[in-house]
Parts: sequence; C-alpha cells; structure tokens
Amino acid sequence: MSSEGWAPRESARPAAAGPVDVQTDIVVVGGGGAGLPTALFARWLGDEVMLLEKAQQLGGTARKAAFWYGVPRNEPMKARGIEDPEEDFLRYCARLSHPESYDPDSPTFGLGEWELAQIRAIYESASPATELLAERDALPYRHCEAVPDYWAELPEDKAPTGRVLVPRDARESMSDGGLNAIRTMSAAAERDGVDIRTGHRVQRVITDGDAVVGVEATTADGKTVRVGARKAVIFASGGFTHDPELRRNFLAAPVYGGCAAVSNEGDLVRIAGPLGAQLRNMNHAWMCPIPIEKALAGDPELSGMFSVAGDSMIFVDKTGRRVVNEKLPYNELAQTFFRWDPVAGEYPYLVLVQIWDERSQRHSASDEYGRLIVGDTGASDAHVIRGETLEELTEGIRERFERVAHATGGARISDDFLTNLQASIARFNELAARGVDEDFGRGERAVQQLFNGDVKEEPGRTNPTMWPIAGEGPYYAALVTGGTLDTKGGPKTTPDGQMVDDLDRPIPGLYGVGNCVASPSARAYWAGGATLGPIIAYAYRAAHAAHAEPVRTASLVGA
Amino acid sequence: MSSEGWAPRESARPAAAGPVDVQTDIVVVGGGGAGLPTALFARWLGDEVMLLEKAQQLGGTARKAAFWYGVPRNEPMKARGIEDPEEDFLRYCARLSHPESYDPDSPTFGLGEWELAQIRAIYESASPATELLAERDALPYRHCEAVPDYWAELPEDKAPTGRVLVPRDARESMSDGGLNAIRTMSAAAERDGVDIRTGHRVQRVITDGDAVVGVEATTADGKTVRVGARKAVIFASGGFTHDPELRRNFLAAPVYGGCAAVSNEGDLVRIAGPLGAQLRNMNHAWMCPIPIEKALAGDPELSGMFSVAGDSMIFVDKTGRRVVNEKLPYNELAQTFFRWDPVAGEYPYLVLVQIWDERSQRHSASDEYGRLIVGDTGASDAHVIRGETLEELTEGIRERFERVAHATGGARISDDFLTNLQASIARFNELAARGVDEDFGRGERAVQQLFNGDVKEEPGRTNPTMWPIAGEGPYYAALVTGGTLDTKGGPKTTPDGQMVDDLDRPIPGLYGVGNCVASPSARAYWAGGATLGPIIAYAYRAAHAAHAEPVRTASLVGA
Repeated sequence: MSSEGWAPRESARPAAAGPVDVQTDIVVVGGGGAGLPTALFARWLGDEVMLLEKAQQLGGTARKAAFWYGVPRNEPMKARGIEDPEEDFLRYCARLSHPESYDPDSPTFGLGEWELAQIRAIYESASPATELLAERDALPYRHCEAVPDYWAELPEDKAPTGRVLVPRDARESMSDGGLNAIRTMSAAAERDGVDIRTGHRVQRVITDGDAVVGVEATTADGKTVRVGARKAVIFASGGFTHDPELRRNFLAAPVYGGCAAVSNEGDLVRIAGPLGAQLRNMNHAWMCPIPIEKALAGDPELSGMFSVAGDSMIFVDKTGRRVVNEKLPYNELAQTFFRWDPVAGEYPYLVLVQIWDERSQRHSASDEYGRLIVGDTGASDAHVIRGETLEELTEGIRERFERVAHATGGARISDDFLTNLQASIARFNELAARGVDEDFGRGERAVQQLFNGDVKEEPGRTNPTMWPIAGEGPYYAALVTGGTLDTKGGPKTTPDGQMVDDLDRPIPGLYGVGNCVASPSARAYWAGGATLGPIIAYAYRAAHAAHAEPVRTASLVGA
Repeated sequence: MSSEGWAPRESARPAAAGPVDVQTDIVVVGGGGAGLPTALFARWLGDEVMLLEKAQQLGGTARKAAFWYGVPRNEPMKARGIEDPEEDFLRYCARLSHPESYDPDSPTFGLGEWELAQIRAIYESASPATELLAERDALPYRHCEAVPDYWAELPEDKAPTGRVLVPRDARESMSDGGLNAIRTMSAAAERDGVDIRTGHRVQRVITDGDAVVGVEATTADGKTVRVGARKAVIFASGGFTHDPELRRNFLAAPVYGGCAAVSNEGDLVRIAGPLGAQLRNMNHAWMCPIPIEKALAGDPELSGMFSVAGDSMIFVDKTGRRVVNEKLPYNELAQTFFRWDPVAGEYPYLVLVQIWDERSQRHSASDEYGRLIVGDTGASDAHVIRGETLEELTEGIRERFERVAHATGGARISDDFLTNLQASIARFNELAARGVDEDFGRGERAVQQLFNGDVKEEPGRTNPTMWPIAGEGPYYAALVTGGTLDTKGGPKTTPDGQMVDDLDRPIPGLYGVGNCVASPSARAYWAGGATLGPIIAYAYRAAHAAHAEPVRTASLVGA
C-alpha cells in the first residue's frame, strides 16, 4: 500500500479471460465528477453497476472543485428566453480550441471531424443529462445567471452568460459546490444500488479476443479481485497531473503539478495503450496558477488559484517587473509562466511573485478558490512571506527563491529586484489611481471582475481590481507558478465514449469519460464549467451506449 | 498506392506468428539517416539484414539535410587536444533540455534517470560509431572545427566548438551533406550485402507471445509480404511531421508541417501502441521556420529555413512591428511564432513577414538552407512578394495573408501595417547604422553570424548581420511560420534501443532508432548535428544489442 492509501502500480498488460471473482453489467472505474454520474446514468437504465475507486474516499478532483458546470441551452436559459443556437456554440468552441485553424466559412469551422462530433455531443446531451440528475435528486442545481463566459466579449459568443449551473446547496460564493455535488451524487448512488468499492485500484482490463470483459483490481492490502463486466468497462479515472514522467513527456508546458486528486496518475494511459487505443489531446491541460511550494511538497490539499484576490496587489517577475494582467482567467494566466526566452534559454516567468499590502491582507483574505492571501481565515499561510518594509520583503523573497532553486532551474531574484519592484509599484499606483491599466488591461473584462474576490469598497471607483499599493508596510508576498486542474488527454473516444483503435474502430466493451480520455477542447477553457458540463454529457451518452452492448458472461471462480 | 508512391495505411494491430514469405536476421524499417547506419552496423556484425523503405527511394529526411553530425569527444577533437569531458557534456545537455529543473548539484543534473542514461549513451558511442562508418568508407567525414554550438556562450558548454562533422565530400557550404551521406551509406549497404527493398510499407509487426518476430509490409502495388526476423526488428521510420492529427494532438506548438520526408507519418506511433510501448517526449520537435505557403501545399521539397539570409532584412508581425531577433538559431526562432496572447486569444505571431530590399536580393540570394531570398538561383520564388514601393509591397502582403487566411485562423495585416512598417524600418536602420541591435540583440552571438549567409561586404563593419534597409524600392517579402525538421517523440527505449513496456521491461525483438523513438533532448537543440550525431550512436548500440538477441526461426510459406 502506498503512502496515499492505495496499491502500487503493477503491469497494465491485459489479463486473459477466464473465471472472475464477481460479475456485474457495467464496471465504472473512478468515483469522482465523471464516475459518479456515469454510474448513476447506467444504473437508472437498469444495469447492474459496480464502481471501483482507487482512493479510500469518493470524490476525486471534483471534491475540491466549485463544481460549476457549463450546460449549453440549459432549461433555465430556455425559461428566461436566452437563445443558444448550436451553430454559434460550435463556432465559439472552434474559435477558442483551435484559433490557429479557425475558419468561420468551413463546415467544421476548422475543427477536425472528431472534434466537431465531440463538441456536438456536448450541445446535444449536457442539458438532458443535467435535468435527469436533478430530477432524480442526484444533483439539484441552481442557475448562475450572471456568470459570464471567459471569452464573453468574442463576437462568436452568442450566449455570453447563462450556461453555468452550480449545485443547489452550495454556499453563495459557490466554492463548496464540489463537496455538495459529491455528497448528493454519492447518496443517490447508494440509494439506487450502485455497488461502490473504494480502495480498489484497477490495474488492467480482462480481454476476450478483441473485447474488454472486465478488470483486475488490487485492494489497498494487496489482494487482486477479478471483476467481470457483462456489458462494458467505463473508465472515469482522471488525468495524469500527478505522474511527473507523463507530464514531462506529453504536456506543452513544464508544469510542477496541480490540484487534481492525487490519485490522478494517468492509469488509463498505461492500461489503454496495449489495447491499441489512440491517444489524443495529450499536449493540453486545464490550467491554473498554483503556489509552487505546495506543488513541490505534493500537498494533496493544494488548490489552484482560480481567483487572484486583492486590488492593491501585483505580480512581478524575478527581476521585480510587472509582466502580466493578474486578473486574467486562470487558464490564460497560467500560460504566462511558460513563456520561453530564446536568448537566455530559460522560462523567465516560471516563478512569479504575488505582492500585496496590508489593505489587501485585511480586506481580501479568503480560504476559498486557492487564493494566496489567507489572513486569519485558518488556512495555512506557510507560503506567505512578510516584511515590514519592501527591503525586508525582498530579503524574504530572495531566501524563498533560494529554497526552491533546486527545482526551478536555479531561478533567483536579480540584484536590482528591489529597485525594479519600487518602480513597478510606482507605475501600478499611477495606473490604479486612474483605474486604467494601460500596461496590461487589468479589470477591462467582465470575467476579470468576476474573479476579483472581496476588496475594500471604494465609493465611485470604476475599476475595483486596482488600488494603489501602500507606501508603508507591512507587505506580503508568495511564489506562484503555473499548474493544472488536471490534464485533458487520453484515449480518443466516439461521441458515445467508446475508445477506438488506430482505424477508429470501437474497442468492444471499452469506454471512457472525463479527464482520463481526450477532450475536444484542445487548449481552450471555454467558460466556467467547461470541465464538468461536458463530462456530464459524456457520462450520459456512455451509459446509454454501454447499456446497448451485447451481454458477455464469464464463469465465477469456483462456480 | 497513394499519390506519394506507397501503400495506404492499414490496421497496425500485430499479426500472429506463422509461416513467413522471407526471413532474415534483422529487419530495419526505414532507409534514411537512422536506418542506413543501423543496417550497416548490423551487417558488419555478421547478421543478415533486410532494409524495408516505404518510399521509392532511400534517404528519408537526411537526403534533404546538410547532415551535420554532432559527435562529442570525436577523434579530430582529440587530435587537436580539445577536451570534452563527459560530466560537462551531460551538464550542458541537461541545462538545455530541461532548464526548468536543471540542478547542477544533483547527480542527474535534474534529468530523469532515463534521460541521463540516453545522453550518456550518445557520449559513449557517437565517436566509435562515427569512426567505424568512416573506416568502412560508408561515411567519410571532415571536421567543422570552427562551428560553434548553438548555446556556445553558456558557462556549461566546455567544448563550444569542435563536435560537428560533415560528410567529407560535401560542398564548402555543406548544404549537400545529406545527399553525400545517403549516397555513400547506400553504396556501402549494397556493397556489403544489405538486402534493400524500397516501396515496402511496414504495416505491423508479427508477434509470437511477447516477442516481435517479424513484420508485415505492403508493396506499392498492394501485395503483402511477411518478413520473419530471427533476431530483431529495428524501426528507423522517422517522426510524425506529416500526420496532421498526431501533430495537433501531441506537439506543444500548432505547427503546419515541416521539412521531414513526406513519408514521416508517425507509423511507429500506431504500430508500437498495441505492443504496450510507452510513448515519451511526444510534445517536442526539432523546429525551424518554414514558408507557410509551401507547408500548406504539402510541397515535398519544402526546406526548413536554417539560415535567415540578408543584412538589410527584418521580420515584422501582422501589424508591421519587428518582434524578434531574426538571426536566432532556427529551433529558437521557430518558437516565436507560437507565442500566445492571453487577451486576444490567439497566436499573434503565427505568421510573420520577412522583408528585404534590393541589396539583400542581389547579395544574399541562395538556393541553400531553405533561404527565402532566392534571386536568380533557379529556385522557385512563388513565395516572394515584390513591390516597387512599401505601399505596393504592403498591398501584396495583404493579399497574400488573405489567400491563406482560411488556414491561419484568419490572420490578416492590420490597417496601420504600413505606418508601423515604416517606423520599424526607421528604427532598424538607426540600429543597423550603429551595428548594435538594442531591441533584440541581433548578431551578438557567434551562431547568429554563422547563419548569416552571404551579405554584401562592408569594410569596417562589426556586425555583418545588419545594414539599413534602402529608402527606395524594389522591396521583397515572404510569409513565414514555425515548423519542424521532424518530431522527436515516440516509444521509450533503453540506451540500447530496445522499446520498453509500461514497467520498463524490454519488448523482446523490438528496437527503434532516430526520430521515430523518444529523444532525451526534450525541447533542446543542443548544437548543429544534435539530430544525426546521437542517431548514429544509437544505431551502433541497437545493432550490437540486436546482434546478441536469441535466434527465433519461423517456417517459410510453402516450406
């Protein structure tokens, strides 16, 4: 048993058919935001369902999430008369997923046929799936009518608000949506007879000829269980955020980790390979800034920074210069860290420093959304550097860079850091006083204000994302890098979740849903809930397709 | 038969053991810069060798290359007393391949164990392999004593010149090195009894239990040939530059293609998957600028732009602004095109415009190294836009952007392009007059001068990479984007070229060499010849390991 509480990884080579220890219609691998709805949809179609979860508890990454879910043409939109036509939805997604080949005049909008079909499936099924989960009391929701898409200003976005839902009983800030969703979906799964087994790590599938007919799992205490699946095995086991070798060899950016559940170690990449599955979208991830020290420590409670709080706050690079709009949506902000300098031969922004003053410390502290200004909220502040003066703060920052230099390619602050920092603050203060960020456009878009968090109110201010940083200490700082919520590559599936071989033929009995399989979103984060909305749609479709699979029955051991 | 002259792709699922049509000791798949030396080394060890090449001619990508090969501690270096200690070589490679985790104090320098072992293998074997090829008259060479590494100024580079060799009979500019190398290696292979079969596309391997015991190939006229391999199958089939779907789903940058042989379609990615091979370094490629129109047309003669010629020449973006040091080494220059703008949601530099005047047209024209200033050299100038004035040139550029807009996400020049271009030229001219590029550092490093190409001589000039652009026309322009020489991801191998499964166990009888397997170089282009030097080392090692494999004999069809 590993320190995380599950069995170590064994060979992923498929096991041969033969007697099994236990049998069910559909095996779902993983009990998070993809596995739970998949199991529910399958169960509601009348199938026997067994859900195997590697960790000792259900919830996966979704447990830590706000669990926004983006659902095109959802019922509350319809009720309010908000239109969300399919063609415009496809256009918006195409524009963002592949801006380099977006073509408004092409029938596929410049997408590949596969990507187009996958996005269509979201449009078609996210809403009926959502309604069914709500009807059965597995995931009651409320509508976040005012939340804008992350690219709401694009001309392609014909429904800039209205697609986002959140679990009904989430608090007003919505940050505990995931806990709520996992609680209600788990309860429904128990209630409706899903056979849930935690502490079961699926090591490989069982094959009979070309067909997948079950899995072999090992329990935390090392016992192997052969589970027969009469109809299908549906993987919902998450991405590879916590496998450093997969990250390094597939992702476009050299990230240090992320806020996915620590059980997301890319198991399916290894299991699906020998089955001849094609891997797709392996280069991309759902991205967000993360505190580098927690990532290096492998902290399972690490949260991505979905909202960079504070108005009297800036990010500077290791030379003390401001280099980015700090209020960009998290997926875009995270790209900044990986800008390559072709002359120095390094990633100059790999580690940036968030700096704030006592005003933001007092008024913008929070234990939500991974914010680094934690104040007296009870959240750990081990990442916070404090200095009575900018000189003292700089010394603290210097030391903290030094402490992690072994893992950052030796990133250290420059000798003129303090001088540049002072100039950066002076410039920012000048811009903040006018409320217009001429340098980086901070606060210009709706989504940037949405993620501003709490700030001290200032009557008459037009841009609440900015306020001059105080001339006197204390000052605070923290080191930030880019990370993942989770990765978004894996086996290519049909729009019904069937994994396909090198000639796009479905592999009989083998399905996948969620971050463990390839997303058609490519590099884009279309909007809040662009992770979980599509996942719910695919869960619904995979359950239906698996339900229609021919029944294959194995004998039981000893039977 | 495809338009390119080879059979279409079929299922890559392994075929079962059984009678074969023909049998040999070692099958080498691919007859380019990796396959030819592999076949030679194997043959010289006494093995029967059959080389199967998909195309109708040998040479692959190497045929189009200058065929520099970088060989650490090579014999000419030793003869000249140039030291090249192993530890420093490893350190230099580590610093560049993984700058984000480089750690001079770590025993692996921040590399993974696998990467370290792979780089050590280059250090150990590149020189003996090179000497053997020369001794047997398969690849006689000459020493390029003065060629600097691409990062010669890094403190980690203890041998900044001396590692580069080139085929002996290449012309002085070395641009025809590949033709020479393919000619001499092919002749040696014929002479020494390698059984060479062109027009044979390997579709899949033949397996016997876990072991690979042969391949199935289809000829251009559709006949399937089963070839038994008593000892091993060694893939040397190139990367996936010409498979748009693999590029899009694996590479870190959205490239439009590259100058690899058009037969490099990622065949091994599909063939090795079902064998349980791990894929590694799939995100990276050997990169270079390319003329976007030739890439979109799929021109098989496309060359990467390894040398951006001209002194009175600049690159500007679609707004007319100069954005990069035009003389950066090609791999680094190519990254520029893929800088992401998180506010606009696009790659603003996806297409840049090279602009030059009559001086560069007259004095820097060339048909070598993919240069876009071709003048009267006989090379195609379909990519060249000409204008008597900057106004006319701008109109030509506008029209040319429009012509490819369907494939570039609608990139078009801005309304103020001409105004900005005029300002960019004025600024460049001011810097050129002083010979100091304060904006981008053009010409500051040795390698930038190395790739300057011919320019009109100007007595007393210190920076030959810059000269003011004329105040009068005619002017010339061409559209450029980033592309690949070839990709550098594929199955992970041992330092002896054995592909490994998910637990790092060698797959019996299955080997790989060259751009079809994973390179330990990650994102780096260490120096000139960083492609072919390591390939020759790995070819040598794979041949030795394959020679030692146990003999597995199949029956012949009809026998």
